[in-house]
Amino acid sequence: MLTEFELIKHCFNWPQNNHSIVCAVGDDASIVEVPSGYQLVQSIDTQVADIHFPATAPAQLIAQRALRCAISDLAAMGAKPQAFHLALSLPKNTSQTWLESFSAGLRACANEYSIDLIGGDTTSSPTLVITIQVQGLVPSGKALTRSNANVGDHLWLSDEIGKSAAALESILANPKAFVENRPDVSDSELAAAYYYPQAQIDLGQKLIGLASSAMDISDGLLQDASHIAKASGVCLNFTTADIPISQSAIALHGTDAALEFALCGGDDYQLLFSAPRGVQDALNALGCHCVGQVEKRSSDWVLLDGQPVTNKITGYQHF
Amino acid sequence: MLTEFELIKHCFNWPQNNHSIVCAVGDDASIVEVPSGYQLVQSIDTQVADIHFPATAPAQLIAQRALRCAISDLAAMGAKPQAFHLALSLPKNTSQTWLESFSAGLRACANEYSIDLIGGDTTSSPTLVITIQVQGLVPSGKALTRSNANVGDHLWLSDEIGKSAAALESILANPKAFVENRPDVSDSELAAAYYYPQAQIDLGQKLIGLASSAMDISDGLLQDASHIAKASGVCLNFTTADIPISQSAIALHGTDAALEFALCGGDDYQLLFSAPRGVQDALNALGCHCVGQVEKRSSDWVLLDGQPVTNKITGYQHF
Repeated sequence: MLTEFELIKHCFNWPQNNHSIVCAVGDDASIVEVPSGYQLVQSIDTQVADIHFPATAPAQLIAQRALRCAISDLAAMGAKPQAFHLALSLPKNTSQTWLESFSAGLRACANEYSIDLIGGDTTSSPTLVITIQVQGLVPSGKALTRSNANVGDHLWLSDEIGKSAAALESILANPKAFVENRPDVSDSELAAAYYYPQAQIDLGQKLIGLASSAMDISDGLLQDASHIAKASGVCLNFTTADIPISQSAIALHGTDAALEFALCGGDDYQLLFSAPRGVQDALNALGCHCVGQVEKRSSDWVLLDGQPVTNKITGYQHF
Repeated sequence: MLTEFELIKHCFNWPQNNHSIVCAVGDDASIVEVPSGYQLVQSIDTQVADIHFPATAPAQLIAQRALRCAISDLAAMGAKPQAFHLALSLPKNTSQTWLESFSAGLRACANEYSIDLIGGDTTSSPTLVITIQVQGLVPSGKALTRSNANVGDHLWLSDEIGKSAAALESILANPKAFVENRPDVSDSELAAAYYYPQAQIDLGQKLIGLASSAMDISDGLLQDASHIAKASGVCLNFTTADIPISQSAIALHGTDAALEFALCGGDDYQLLFSAPRGVQDALNALGCHCVGQVEKRSSDWVLLDGQPVTNKITGYQHF
């Protein structure tokens, strides 16, 4: 096993892309610049082995997925990725091969999103824990938050949901089985949604000036919807028939289960957002799906076809 | 146990102090501003139960210490603290009392250093893992790095070292015993150095324009010194007689052991820095200790009284 310092140099020190990075990996701290007219958007995300991902999944996939999930929070704010810090707690028996695979996955994903690794911390730990802090730039005052949904706005989804949840059972049963481009197309597409969630970075930036509020769906549509509702003091009323349920999930699990995955399953990382009615054409042109509307709240934060859904809000609970 | 969302609201949502915080805890991400003429300095630090601290230590002390250790990296760069994110992975049986104590300790420390908690993530985990990302502001181009030590510079320490290491044995033997202001003054002072390391924030900012390179000592003086040496391409030659060894450590453990703690013990969080000879009076006036000089490197990165110290570089190794 390499020492902590050799490990950082070997696996986590690659050239930077963004001009705003002044000092990256290797000093007490990193240094970045935030250009005039921009604000810095930041989020921190932890993934724990066998809680957020199967510990025996390929290291490359674990790394990719952790970074994608973290970057998704930047998409939800309309930010452009700039840089990230990685805090990696590794069991003492971690092999160099595993680390090199982890590093390769992380780097490929970082390149895809043009986000630079600028610092980190590696420690030993009985449990594999990955914490990623991501940051991005947004024009000052333009970030998409959860608190500005207005009564009368439409509700929108960026794309189909329920794929990751539909894949989870087979992934947990056999974490090493996933290989891209398997002949079994439906299964492969769902597993890809789990391992390679597509952070909606381009769409997020395009939603600035169109959306009134936004968030990414990580814990399930209905549970996450309640956060926008509470932050904005409104009720979100979804129309079941308009929700873009994964066709692969329907093919594999049937309509009822696929709807349940879409409403309550986590790990989708699609965007849920509200927008005034006037921008409907622009949002349709972006491939988004109108799935309901924002209403004045009487007693419930979230409704499905006008009905309470309290018993359906069963997104992931950590405690 | 509270849910993740109730927990955040209950324990980690307190008013912000810094004007540059636009959006804190509660959205997908935080938003900050970096004033014109400043750069953002950032670091991430992980502490794992029973590796970085005794798991049974009081939660308030665990939290304080984790934040202080993280902030120390800002001091080493000459930055003024602005904000931090907290990623907290908690065993499922964590009590609300423990969390409230953790929160109180964190908040007290955050207030002391005028640093705002602006975001985080709480997850469950078999192991208690605390990751803190800190950030601060530094005038553009003025940050203290490790790479500018010049041959002929003096080497300096901000204060006595070896206290934390001298306290470690008794702390590990009885993690709950530490109470401030114990009659046994020496022991209490050493334990305080472990649990309440003083991040040298004020001094760090004053060193801008005086020091040529700087870092904080977390893994032991000699091991950490090699990082400045390698980054600057020079040799650091320390004078044993000038190293400010903790008097309490000498009183409790004897001179030889106290010297060993000072040279190789971790957790000091004092600053080691180099500075040109012309600023000696200014640094003495700040209470700093001149402990050696920067020399041209022949074969060793670090020397003690001109002699190689390879066998002494036994700072903490994670792997």
